[in-house]
Amino acid sequence: MEPKNLKHSTINLGHGSGGVMTRDLLDDIIFTTFDNPLLNQKHDGSIVKFDTEIAISTDSFVVSPIFFKGGNIGELAVNGTVNDVAMCGAIPKYLSLAFIIEEGLEMEQFVRIVKSVKEAADKSGVQIITGDTKVVERGKGDKIFINTTGFGAVHPKSRIAAGNIKAGDRIIINGNIAQHGMAIMSEREGLEFESSIESDTTNVNHLVKELLDVFGEDIHLFRDPTRGGMASVLSEISHDIGMGIKIFENDFPLEKQVAAACEILGLDPLYVANEGVFISIVEETIAEQVLNMMKKDPKGVNARCIGYITEEHPKKVVMQSSIGGNRMVSPLIGEQLPRIC
Amino acid sequence: MEPKNLKHSTINLGHGSGGVMTRDLLDDIIFTTFDNPLLNQKHDGSIVKFDTEIAISTDSFVVSPIFFKGGNIGELAVNGTVNDVAMCGAIPKYLSLAFIIEEGLEMEQFVRIVKSVKEAADKSGVQIITGDTKVVERGKGDKIFINTTGFGAVHPKSRIAAGNIKAGDRIIINGNIAQHGMAIMSEREGLEFESSIESDTTNVNHLVKELLDVFGEDIHLFRDPTRGGMASVLSEISHDIGMGIKIFENDFPLEKQVAAACEILGLDPLYVANEGVFISIVEETIAEQVLNMMKKDPKGVNARCIGYITEEHPKKVVMQSSIGGNRMVSPLIGEQLPRIC
Repeated sequence: MEPKNLKHSTINLGHGSGGVMTRDLLDDIIFTTFDNPLLNQKHDGSIVKFDTEIAISTDSFVVSPIFFKGGNIGELAVNGTVNDVAMCGAIPKYLSLAFIIEEGLEMEQFVRIVKSVKEAADKSGVQIITGDTKVVERGKGDKIFINTTGFGAVHPKSRIAAGNIKAGDRIIINGNIAQHGMAIMSEREGLEFESSIESDTTNVNHLVKELLDVFGEDIHLFRDPTRGGMASVLSEISHDIGMGIKIFENDFPLEKQVAAACEILGLDPLYVANEGVFISIVEETIAEQVLNMMKKDPKGVNARCIGYITEEHPKKVVMQSSIGGNRMVSPLIGEQLPRIC
Repeated sequence: MEPKNLKHSTINLGHGSGGVMTRDLLDDIIFTTFDNPLLNQKHDGSIVKFDTEIAISTDSFVVSPIFFKGGNIGELAVNGTVNDVAMCGAIPKYLSLAFIIEEGLEMEQFVRIVKSVKEAADKSGVQIITGDTKVVERGKGDKIFINTTGFGAVHPKSRIAAGNIKAGDRIIINGNIAQHGMAIMSEREGLEFESSIESDTTNVNHLVKELLDVFGEDIHLFRDPTRGGMASVLSEISHDIGMGIKIFENDFPLEKQVAAACEILGLDPLYVANEGVFISIVEETIAEQVLNMMKKDPKGVNARCIGYITEEHPKKVVMQSSIGGNRMVSPLIGEQLPRIC
């Protein structure tokens, strides 16, 4: 990144004008960072070709603060959408990138965020192919919001569909829960343990691809429990498939300090947002092999089987607690942690 | 649209939680309005198939006010992206739709906006296939921002590329300039003429398709002069192709009352944003036929040839003014009308 015209220490309204300042900002920061032939068309859009079915997913990111332990809004915006595309059983390939910036954002922060976007995109193997930059007046936004829309080629062996889930299927999670939400909360609350809890924001698309390569149609669903946490996602799935879900509190991988932080703040880790976590709902017969494969991957070392699908208690999630009793798990009511992603 | 659970008169943070309130909002408003099999997958994304090249374009809309004479942010967000996809020489087919809502937005306004999105999507022939809803605290946004990302099949006869432009090519515009920007300005300033100036927000994709059907590769470029207006877009093109552009002030179609409003506010209509306007840069030999075809379309009745490409004054736009002199047209410097789209 070698800025040619970068003269401003903050973003101002002119950077969203569509005129000279917009062009300079794009030339100095965006085109130099994401340099690729598709983006360099510099047209109103970009033209690509897929020979397969395409999975498309969009997300706007409004996390606050924009920099937090373990990441920032830039890499979150890449990883979040990359993972959503992967959850569709696809291999993410392209991203669009749209900024809504509040007047006054420090240029240095913007540049850091753009660099993070680039690094995260490289790690996931996706290209930024088109974008947009808008600027709103001071007090009409909050530093920066980012929308990414992702496109991926559906994996040839993928048969991901809630309709394929059946009783007996196992639910496997790749890693520790509640990391991202607690990292953000710790920043906000300025808690003492903040130094050690890091967001788990990361891309899981390569691990997802490996799983599909090997297990194909025996994987019935992927889903990432971001906003609303594990409880909301499991409730939604249970509701959609009209079957019950049984989970075991003791089997959830959870870092000690995260558990402690949840306790201090009175939060249930099942409702706290994750970013690098996903569940796979798979044929009972392959559950053990899936677990073994995951554990060999840096993004799956803490993988566990947390429960199964059952004909009992249809549309309900029941958790066997650590002391042995059973309780119903409802989806998130109201809002626990606004602007977590 | 038959709300089942709609209990709130305003949007609140819980509507962005990812939990029960988000689900209810989606069920009540989004899924009932946009009801289609792709969206109804209710997965993290949507799966589609294209047999052609795909044009992709993204835009975030932050217009203020969100309702204005001639339209609102909802239809603007559809038309803007639909037109950007069309400008790539493609036939828009799908849109993603992502909201960033400020806590406190009236539910009735949100519903009206969503209905406008649906109507505009129907008119353009596009489907909303995936989306996202985030809510930020009061004072951290401004009512509602919308991102749409559009996907279209590249027209088989399209050979749109700035590289195909050559000296002698004619520049044709489909309609009156400066309407959108002045409609927004009039609202903001509360000017007396506000009653009669309407935004020109509309979809031009059907007209673009007709042009490509008939003229194919003889059309070298489409471009819509939104933010930054005609002046910025022409300057950009001239700069990109390394040739000059000659335009004629008298040939620009401009409503009298819009011209008057520009004069009162001291604005040059060449720099004012448009929404339903696009330029076509075409072979000299077909210019007359293109004009004739446009004039038969409701969205091209005011079509005019406004200038041509020239080997003279490379990278510069020169305008012959109404009184006969020549002046250089620079792109927009600074910001004239923030948050126009």
